[in-house]
Amino acid sequence: MNRFIMNKKIFRKTIIDTASQTYIEDWKISNKDIELESNYEWYIHKKRLYGGKQDNIDIIEVNNGSLSFIIVPTRGMGIWKGKFKDCFLGWESPIKQLVNPCYIKLEERGGLGWLDGFNEWIVRCGLENNGAPGEDIIIDNMGREKKVFLPLHGKIANIPADKVEISIDLEKKFEINVNGIVYERSMFGSNFKMSTSIVTELGSNWIKIKDVIENLRAIPSEMQLIYHCNYGEPFLEDGSTLIAPIKRVVPRDKYAIENIDSFSYFSGPKPGFIEQVYFLELLGDDEGKTMVMLKNKEGIKGTSISFSLKQLPYFTLWKNTASYEDGYVVGLEPGTNFPNNRAFEREKGRVVKLAPNAKYIAEITFAVHLDKEVEEIEEYIKKLQGRIKPEIIRNVHPDFSKA
Amino acid sequence: MNRFIMNKKIFRKTIIDTASQTYIEDWKISNKDIELESNYEWYIHKKRLYGGKQDNIDIIEVNNGSLSFIIVPTRGMGIWKGKFKDCFLGWESPIKQLVNPCYIKLEERGGLGWLDGFNEWIVRCGLENNGAPGEDIIIDNMGREKKVFLPLHGKIANIPADKVEISIDLEKKFEINVNGIVYERSMFGSNFKMSTSIVTELGSNWIKIKDVIENLRAIPSEMQLIYHCNYGEPFLEDGSTLIAPIKRVVPRDKYAIENIDSFSYFSGPKPGFIEQVYFLELLGDDEGKTMVMLKNKEGIKGTSISFSLKQLPYFTLWKNTASYEDGYVVGLEPGTNFPNNRAFEREKGRVVKLAPNAKYIAEITFAVHLDKEVEEIEEYIKKLQGRIKPEIIRNVHPDFSKA
Amino acid sequence: MNRFIMNKKIFRKTIIDTASQTYIEDWKISNKDIELESNYEWYIHKKRLYGGKQDNIDIIEVNNGSLSFIIVPTRGMGIWKGKFKDCFLGWESPIKQLVNPCYIKLEERGGLGWLDGFNEWIVRCGLENNGAPGEDIIIDNMGREKKVFLPLHGKIANIPADKVEISIDLEKKFEINVNGIVYERSMFGSNFKMSTSIVTELGSNWIKIKDVIENLRAIPSEMQLIYHCNYGEPFLEDGSTLIAPIKRVVPRDKYAIENIDSFSYFSGPKPGFIEQVYFLELLGDDEGKTMVMLKNKEGIKGTSISFSLKQLPYFTLWKNTASYEDGYVVGLEPGTNFPNNRAFEREKGRVVKLAPNAKYIAEITFAVHLDKEVEEIEEYIKKLQGRIKPEIIRNVHPDFSKA
Repeated sequence: MNRFIMNKKIFRKTIIDTASQTYIEDWKISNKDIELESNYEWYIHKKRLYGGKQDNIDIIEVNNGSLSFIIVPTRGMGIWKGKFKDCFLGWESPIKQLVNPCYIKLEERGGLGWLDGFNEWIVRCGLENNGAPGEDIIIDNMGREKKVFLPLHGKIANIPADKVEISIDLEKKFEINVNGIVYERSMFGSNFKMSTSIVTELGSNWIKIKDVIENLRAIPSEMQLIYHCNYGEPFLEDGSTLIAPIKRVVPRDKYAIENIDSFSYFSGPKPGFIEQVYFLELLGDDEGKTMVMLKNKEGIKGTSISFSLKQLPYFTLWKNTASYEDGYVVGLEPGTNFPNNRAFEREKGRVVKLAPNAKYIAEITFAVHLDKEVEEIEEYIKKLQGRIKPEIIRNVHPDFSKA
Repeated sequence: MNRFIMNKKIFRKTIIDTASQTYIEDWKISNKDIELESNYEWYIHKKRLYGGKQDNIDIIEVNNGSLSFIIVPTRGMGIWKGKFKDCFLGWESPIKQLVNPCYIKLEERGGLGWLDGFNEWIVRCGLENNGAPGEDIIIDNMGREKKVFLPLHGKIANIPADKVEISIDLEKKFEINVNGIVYERSMFGSNFKMSTSIVTELGSNWIKIKDVIENLRAIPSEMQLIYHCNYGEPFLEDGSTLIAPIKRVVPRDKYAIENIDSFSYFSGPKPGFIEQVYFLELLGDDEGKTMVMLKNKEGIKGTSISFSLKQLPYFTLWKNTASYEDGYVVGLEPGTNFPNNRAFEREKGRVVKLAPNAKYIAEITFAVHLDKEVEEIEEYIKKLQGRIKPEIIRNVHPDFSKA
Repeated sequence: MNRFIMNKKIFRKTIIDTASQTYIEDWKISNKDIELESNYEWYIHKKRLYGGKQDNIDIIEVNNGSLSFIIVPTRGMGIWKGKFKDCFLGWESPIKQLVNPCYIKLEERGGLGWLDGFNEWIVRCGLENNGAPGEDIIIDNMGREKKVFLPLHGKIANIPADKVEISIDLEKKFEINVNGIVYERSMFGSNFKMSTSIVTELGSNWIKIKDVIENLRAIPSEMQLIYHCNYGEPFLEDGSTLIAPIKRVVPRDKYAIENIDSFSYFSGPKPGFIEQVYFLELLGDDEGKTMVMLKNKEGIKGTSISFSLKQLPYFTLWKNTASYEDGYVVGLEPGTNFPNNRAFEREKGRVVKLAPNAKYIAEITFAVHLDKEVEEIEEYIKKLQGRIKPEIIRNVHPDFSKA
């Protein structure tokens, strides 16, 4: 590849654009192609995969010099996995390779088809619905009330992006930006445009995702969004803890109730472990900004998630510390709601309604902390907690889950 | 590309033939490649698309010099959209790009999965069934009566063609012919071979589709076919009308009943509009030939559909003049039946039964008319109407839809 | 292609490896590329198919000089069809081309979606379940009893292989080995690794399949496996017979009962024929080895299947001598169980349970016999029968099928 001659301050490259029938199968750019005033050995590599269930999947690997991660346009611009220095970001799902959505049938397995492709570090649940499978009532195109079945975690993670563009700041702070557009749309159904910007800075320890979700319909539409962020080793281990500024925590069911006293502690892998789910309301600063961190036992490896409670007011903790083989993982899940069936969430007033052309914005930042920085982050989160004592509910609560 | 040297009167090119494992990814031919005694700047362009849900879709764009249109082998040889001079042919579905059938699950959404890919100008519904989703009873491979669920509009629009061949007449009238074969088949299920010829003439204002549907089974099979032909602007606008020779018109439900007096008039886009459906019996000439036209307000843009009532005796009018965003569209739908559930249509004697190896032929011609020609076409249709007064049913009729 | 220089005794080539993102689209090797001390004109040809429902399917054609066959990595390493000298191996399904699993929705058609892609000579049913569609009860990830729907014949035949490697013995006996790995896995579901070796010898009349199925979960998993081996002409014809060492035979339903006296005889094609299914217990030698043969009328063409009753103790005979058009076929089906719903088979003690990391091995050999060899094979099978008289049950038996 020839070196680029730059007159503009931003380098831009369109990778996919279905409207103009643009598509680039394989493309790489790195510090060898663009001379930046920086010593980081960064690169961006777009590939198309073949074979197995990953056949025809597009991936974009971004390496900012310190932190690398793999974006998957074909799977709704989710992030498969990452690495910061020696630390793996993500988890070891039983499903080792990416799964092309063409092999996913959401309504199969009683609405659990989503689980056939679940192996990402960061995966969005939504947008029409994002929770447990179940029925809801809608008004159909013939003006009738109609019972519909909503499958687990919705469609957005299994929709290929229609547009992907990469931009690189050629001046400080040298941001790399992967922009994608994913449409969740159908005739006589929802029509959401999700515009995502996935940003990192050369040499940094963070990724920031900014999603703008627009209701393209001429009538109002309900919208749900959860960021299902999943961690295994090395952040998750026997003795890891969740550090979070907590207002209230509620167990989902009997398995969660039994372990309510250790809800923020994680055990090592245990074959046959039954998942425990806790619903959390968090505290934030004056502007509603909050942060949670998963900290390893020794307290020298931490991974934080920062977001706004105005955008993502509900937080779900999914503890699935099963065996390595069956997916040793904990899910940290900020969202517009709890991942219950939509009918239940609507009843509790936790479903967003977007007017025609209204936009919902969610920003979420992922960072990795090593050594002393872990303590600093913990201090920051403790300040958010302040003197407020977390309210710990010890039973199933009718506002949070069905009896 | 070198100029072809022609000794034959027809130029032929095989684009896809699964049996011989023939496949051409990208191919173009135009007036620059073949010298015809004609001044039209025509071309045919076969492409494979990538990215989004259109990944791996084959399209064939045909431009006869005046009229262009895009055939989609991957979607059952439907016609995505077209253009005649400045006039767009088709509609603006909320789904902007083509959808590979691998992403369509017909039985999802309570049998409405078909709607996830619906954006064509001309799309066939059928062949095992073509109407509303619902149950029917069949005899299964074990000789038992079995309840089956039939999804909306059937399978044919979501089956990739096994064979596509292009031929070009090298002598007047310089016809371009795109031939395709689509099989709707399964073990212990229907087995239809649909051979389609999609024909246009250089410089003409028309496309003619000839479909031959053969029952390949050694036992009789029921068959259903509807041509779902969909129009938005500029033919559809506030004040557009349907010009048709009508014997009888029947409203489907209360929304249609309420508007029966203006059933042939179309309004501008209206957010939240509930679809209105009318079942029509048309009049034809002595041979059963008939024609309908969608005419714009001013009466200077018209688009007609011609067919035989012997082949396609039932006509459905689908008025969905919703907002632009949600699909401002009217569907003109000649068919072998009305698009009710198959069990209902069978009861009313409107399901074709094909003997082993029997063939059903349907021919349908689409034309565009501008200026004075619109009037001429209207005159022709009025002659078909003659002195017969359309019978207007003002209630739901048990022969046409369920109470 | 250049001739290979060989220092090792085995030539190896990786065709697909999703883990290392290795994929070869088109590859051929033959006796012209490797000089073996053999005169056979053999070849191996890997291709990717395009167009129709076979779009993006990988096939590997193996020709050992006498016997050729086509392995389909994209369809779970099944064997599409074969040829020995002039004899076709396989059957004429109504589905003429291979079907990419992305077009298969197992749960559609009331759980009969599998039938939309069924046209192989040898296709595995399993691994989570392998029988008739129906409900079963499992314990889900939330620790609750949950009703699940299991579709016909399970998933394994519709999962693309993650790894395919070809090896060729460079010394006698010049074996060609196609190794594949297929994972049937999901989060909160089964997780099986099937490692298959498909072996043949230059110039031989046989293929041997060795499958090793490992439970990758940390908890025990039920496993089911059937080899659905299907034959049409020339082995199946009016007057063909099944030669098998039979302990007991049980008819499945009234259609089988009516024809129990001729259960091992096959008729010519008959339109509208209702399938007849028989459940068989076979006899074997001291080590449990057994063999069955389908013999043509004249007794000069036979095709045998050899396996161990320790590995595959149950044998199902599927007679579907319908018209050529609708699939004139007989299925010989050795398995770990009978192809009833899993709940029923569990009740009868015929479901394998694999401990964590336990492996189940199944070996099965397919051979073709012409002329005198047919008699020799028949003699061998008769010896297995010995003086034991087959027990013929003339009614539905509650241990074998539901009343």
